[in-house]
Amino acid sequence: MGGLPEVRPGDDLAAVLAQAASPQSGDVLVVAHKVVSKAEGRLRELAAVDPGPRARELAAEHGKDPRLVQTVLDETATLLRAERGVLICETHHGLICANAGVDQSNAPEGHAVLLPEDPDRSARGMRARLPGRPAVVISDSFGRAWRLGQVDVAIGAAGLVPLDDWRGRTDAHGRELRATALATADALAAAADLARLKDEAEPAVLVRGLDRLVTKEDGPGAAALRRPVEEDLFR
Amino acid sequence: MGGLPEVRPGDDLAAVLAQAASPQSGDVLVVAHKVVSKAEGRLRELAAVDPGPRARELAAEHGKDPRLVQTVLDETATLLRAERGVLICETHHGLICANAGVDQSNAPEGHAVLLPEDPDRSARGMRARLPGRPAVVISDSFGRAWRLGQVDVAIGAAGLVPLDDWRGRTDAHGRELRATALATADALAAAADLARLKDEAEPAVLVRGLDRLVTKEDGPGAAALRRPVEEDLFR
Repeated sequence: MGGLPEVRPGDDLAAVLAQAASPQSGDVLVVAHKVVSKAEGRLRELAAVDPGPRARELAAEHGKDPRLVQTVLDETATLLRAERGVLICETHHGLICANAGVDQSNAPEGHAVLLPEDPDRSARGMRARLPGRPAVVISDSFGRAWRLGQVDVAIGAAGLVPLDDWRGRTDAHGRELRATALATADALAAAADLARLKDEAEPAVLVRGLDRLVTKEDGPGAAALRRPVEEDLFR
Repeated sequence: MGGLPEVRPGDDLAAVLAQAASPQSGDVLVVAHKVVSKAEGRLRELAAVDPGPRARELAAEHGKDPRLVQTVLDETATLLRAERGVLICETHHGLICANAGVDQSNAPEGHAVLLPEDPDRSARGMRARLPGRPAVVISDSFGRAWRLGQVDVAIGAAGLVPLDDWRGRTDAHGRELRATALATADALAAAADLARLKDEAEPAVLVRGLDRLVTKEDGPGAAALRRPVEEDLFR
């Protein structure tokens, strides 16, 4: 879905997307979080940020703008790593990503874009206002431990099976599969990213043919993909 | 691509796949590693494995079969974590995954399936023998740090841009994008997994329309996606 207008705070994003595409029941609409954040006014004007001592210290250590680092820290529940210019943060939502998802690219001049306050709520809200009630996935590009490059993951979702649990099912020989739960919402986000240019002129992708993953209820959302701290081996 | 025959050691997998589909130039053929491993005879008969003291110790600690643990250790360069029944290994190829990729599901009775010895070589070999010379991705399902569920990633690739580097390009406002390199090979593996059932009767998916990622040369393969140890913050 290209050719969308520039999205501004207060815009009705569902109406904009509904005009650009005609989602049908059973479709999945994958939306890059940045337009969602912009529509929700999740922007920080850097000139208005007063960096504290910790932000100044980290900024000096890592060659960053202290106002940007303060913005990152405001979005951070736990700072997991600060090494080689990279801040790996756990956000208040429990997402683990670089810079707590704060990003200046494609931001209005002098601003940084934050993640939506509650991306699952944002997804539910968009779904409710889209014709056809497609499932909605809100995506962001995350780096990964151990592997180079970023892939898009689902930070918010509504109306989708986010985690398709195959445990207890059997293989072609009737033997139980090893612990297997597919992170379907993340795979959808990754797939959608292949179908568009990394450019805000194409922030949404409509995926057809995966009706089996679309649910009537909004469901648990992308929160279901966050690994509980006590099961986490890599902090 | 469903309805493929059961693959056995020595089978000509490229011929089997060529018969099931008609790949064209510019297509990407994503193949689940298990059929590749089987065709290459990368199977271990557990009855023939003599577990050493370390394997016996780990097996007792984690409630596992000591012969299976020995098989995992044989495939492992570095054991990163052994906790709560999970072995997170760096394989000899430099892949970081549970159980060094060793898996009993969909394996012949009494056997475990190993990863291909050199998945990039396997991908190049298949590509050379497929009509149309499509790009080839060999995939496996990996768990992730911090997020629940597995997604498919590329463990081998040929004829594909595995990492699409956007650094230096600019956003819609002409500002440089933050460090952004898309792990396209991984996104392709994830996308393909959505298109098939988790069943060995459907081990391959033909992806059309991504010609922009397909190259004449075989290229660096999935090895380009392995993060160098010195850049790794999470070991």
